[in-house]
Amino acid sequence: MHFEKGYKTIEDSKTETIHCLQYEDINGFGRLFGGRLMEWIDTTAGVTAMRHSGIVVTTAAVDHLEFKNGAYLGDILVIIGKVVYVGNTSIDVRVDTYVEDVKTGLRRPINRAYLTEVCVDKDGKPVPVPYGLTLSNESEKAEFEIAKKRRESRKTVSI
Amino acid sequence: MHFEKGYKTIEDSKTETIHCLQYEDINGFGRLFGGRLMEWIDTTAGVTAMRHSGIVVTTAAVDHLEFKNGAYLGDILVIIGKVVYVGNTSIDVRVDTYVEDVKTGLRRPINRAYLTEVCVDKDGKPVPVPYGLTLSNESEKAEFEIAKKRRESRKTVSI
Amino acid sequence: MHFEKGYKTIEDSKTETIHCLQYEDINGFGRLFGGRLMEWIDTTAGVTAMRHSGIVVTTAAVDHLEFKNGAYLGDILVIIGKVVYVGNTSIDVRVDTYVEDVKTGLRRPINRAYLTEVCVDKDGKPVPVPYGLTLSNESEKAEFEIAKKRRESRKTVSI
Amino acid sequence: MHFEKGYKTIEDSKTETIHCLQYEDINGFGRLFGGRLMEWIDTTAGVTAMRHSGIVVTTAAVDHLEFKNGAYLGDILVIIGKVVYVGNTSIDVRVDTYVEDVKTGLRRPINRAYLTEVCVDKDGKPVPVPYGLTLSNESEKAEFEIAKKRRESRKTVSI
Amino acid sequence: MHFEKGYKTIEDSKTETIHCLQYEDINGFGRLFGGRLMEWIDTTAGVTAMRHSGIVVTTAAVDHLEFKNGAYLGDILVIIGKVVYVGNTSIDVRVDTYVEDVKTGLRRPINRAYLTEVCVDKDGKPVPVPYGLTLSNESEKAEFEIAKKRRESRKTVSI
Amino acid sequence: MHFEKGYKTIEDSKTETIHCLQYEDINGFGRLFGGRLMEWIDTTAGVTAMRHSGIVVTTAAVDHLEFKNGAYLGDILVIIGKVVYVGNTSIDVRVDTYVEDVKTGLRRPINRAYLTEVCVDKDGKPVPVPYGLTLSNESEKAEFEIAKKRRESRKTVSI
Repeated sequence: MHFEKGYKTIEDSKTETIHCLQYEDINGFGRLFGGRLMEWIDTTAGVTAMRHSGIVVTTAAVDHLEFKNGAYLGDILVIIGKVVYVGNTSIDVRVDTYVEDVKTGLRRPINRAYLTEVCVDKDGKPVPVPYGLTLSNESEKAEFEIAKKRRESRKTVSI
Repeated sequence: MHFEKGYKTIEDSKTETIHCLQYEDINGFGRLFGGRLMEWIDTTAGVTAMRHSGIVVTTAAVDHLEFKNGAYLGDILVIIGKVVYVGNTSIDVRVDTYVEDVKTGLRRPINRAYLTEVCVDKDGKPVPVPYGLTLSNESEKAEFEIAKKRRESRKTVSI
Repeated sequence: MHFEKGYKTIEDSKTETIHCLQYEDINGFGRLFGGRLMEWIDTTAGVTAMRHSGIVVTTAAVDHLEFKNGAYLGDILVIIGKVVYVGNTSIDVRVDTYVEDVKTGLRRPINRAYLTEVCVDKDGKPVPVPYGLTLSNESEKAEFEIAKKRRESRKTVSI
Repeated sequence: MHFEKGYKTIEDSKTETIHCLQYEDINGFGRLFGGRLMEWIDTTAGVTAMRHSGIVVTTAAVDHLEFKNGAYLGDILVIIGKVVYVGNTSIDVRVDTYVEDVKTGLRRPINRAYLTEVCVDKDGKPVPVPYGLTLSNESEKAEFEIAKKRRESRKTVSI
Repeated sequence: MHFEKGYKTIEDSKTETIHCLQYEDINGFGRLFGGRLMEWIDTTAGVTAMRHSGIVVTTAAVDHLEFKNGAYLGDILVIIGKVVYVGNTSIDVRVDTYVEDVKTGLRRPINRAYLTEVCVDKDGKPVPVPYGLTLSNESEKAEFEIAKKRRESRKTVSI
Repeated sequence: MHFEKGYKTIEDSKTETIHCLQYEDINGFGRLFGGRLMEWIDTTAGVTAMRHSGIVVTTAAVDHLEFKNGAYLGDILVIIGKVVYVGNTSIDVRVDTYVEDVKTGLRRPINRAYLTEVCVDKDGKPVPVPYGLTLSNESEKAEFEIAKKRRESRKTVSI
């Protein structure tokens, strides 16, 4: 085993944050500006990975990020980050973004993203992730396996 | 052929922009805040795709985005967008980010990203890309083929 | 009873959000800029009240807001909003802000604020809060009584 | 007497600032975003207290802040800060916000806030306020007395 | 005379605003970012011209703007706008920026700028300035004459 | 000759950047906020001068800046900086701003500005510009002569 100090569950580092869409967050065509959401997703993934590792991380890659639906002025966004895979020095985080309807409490998914966060020391050099990941159910195990494949497929689809 | 109005070269829509890193662009650890760069990359990809298509686009996905090196306060960033693939209603754009050394003029690559932009009408519904892509050399053809594979592999690596 | 459609618990509308302190959030003396935190507290109180009422709210007053400790560059802030009192057209929300230590998971309180949010219609006019508040324990009941007193004392301390 | 170095009048540190409401300052419902105004009020209170004391201050509390009227896109805001009370290490500042009608020059009040600013040294520790406050008329004396009561009532209305 | 409704003095529209320099206002070399100050100067000139004319204005030109001294993190800036010349449809405003030393109350000049604001109707078309300018002393008259010359010299120094 | 280390052409330091107008860039009257454009022009002039000199610069003056046409939400702005004159320690840069029509590729000029950038050392003191300017054609020579006159006329039009 390459983890020494112990394990954490996915629930231990789960991170939730909200944003209320203002004018500065929507583009000239009235829709959520994608770049702004990416900024919030990046922060959420970073905090999730720091909660798992207990140390400073830096974003190494966005493996995949997909806009499923639009969002508009005044919408309440809920952004949730979960660890899906832990490597030697890096942590894969899935970030889901929803628009919440305050009337019904229902959350409509608008974006899903997978990011790789790397644990770093003071000089920005990679260091081992101090905690392993405890998988609690079949769904978490399936996600873990897909994360593995995603890491392998990276090598073949970028120049 | 599914393109009717003609073709454009990659050079026709090539987009370049610069940013000088200020305090609001770096994180608490002294390095370029990844989320801010993603915001700029998203804008660059959007303008590149609008220059190719001549119509409004919306970001559908970030297929892959990788941080290769850090950047710091005061650095001059040069961000360059190029079309690499044109589908029925979507355009794949590669965005490269460099730190430019004003003393020597040399540019050090710090990030590469692939984004999918979708052409949309006033209601946000996808419409055909009006222009095809003329590939001018072997390097552009190779990139085009890899973009095709990336589109296929997407289906297998996300839930 | 002045509520007709039913009741919600404090837990039903509890709102949590995070912020990672960047340079734009700290003042020239190296500490969290109070005005920025007030901005985040206002948003958190608004979402908490919208989740309780299911309708649009506007901030009517900050009854009391107190900085207990400083926060610094790179700190992770956790901001939590809870309904403490429900009036005819207004909702009192308590917002607690903590600095979270990712190593230990401990949260150090740095600010507590009490805000009054008013439910409004499209023209910005006050409308009744559609849901009453179910108090679940002694602590929630005590907080409810103090909120009542705070409302009364307002009349005597402002011109 | 606990002041040694002398006295200043309220006029000596009176601070005025203006803001022209832009899109980033209004919320999704077309009204001035309360959090943004709080940010400006905090800055105004800080400068007022620094002008009175001649040293660095930090905001300790917002004792009361009340929105009286809305403000909208394009409105010109005038924000005025005045010292109302001086304690051992802290200064109470009243901040009034108006919308100014450039046609008539009339100013409509939209917000009043009372903040407590604490004088601090380089390490952020409280230090005595070097100047006392000279009260020039009955209105200033009445405000001073109310500030005293507000300080006392704080203890009874927050947990 | 081309003014019909009357006259205003320079004092009538004099505009003062303050800013406390934060990290987002200074550049990577530790000094006030010139572009940020230009933004504040533009707003101050606009409000000054709107107070004189009572109608909406748009900035037509910056005739001259000069940085005399630097400013740094934590500095308090005082920006003052004064009308210096009134034409048919445009108003020339001088904007002076100072760093205020809160210890002594002294203000050190760091920038002076001359801007031309044009009165516009709802469609953005120029309309006559409704008020003339009353010059109260020799200094104001000298400034008025220099503004006239500046307007003439514009034609010879720009392509 | 006062240049020792060699010469650069205007093309060598030509700088291009783009911005897509969002809500935060337009004012309450629906038009591009002039202050925001000045901020972008200042950055473009700075990078142009740093590319010519290879060293850090600071903006000393805006000699003239003129708004020719408005720009609106969603517009794509192209900002281009070119060196027009090189003095002992300062560099004059012309910055042209265009709105680009993505349908036709045509660029409509909306602003032209002339800025003076000064080369500085670590302490902010002026140092000689290390490179002279090679003028390639009649248009560049004419612009160079006009820049000379502009520098002279400065002395007569500001107090």
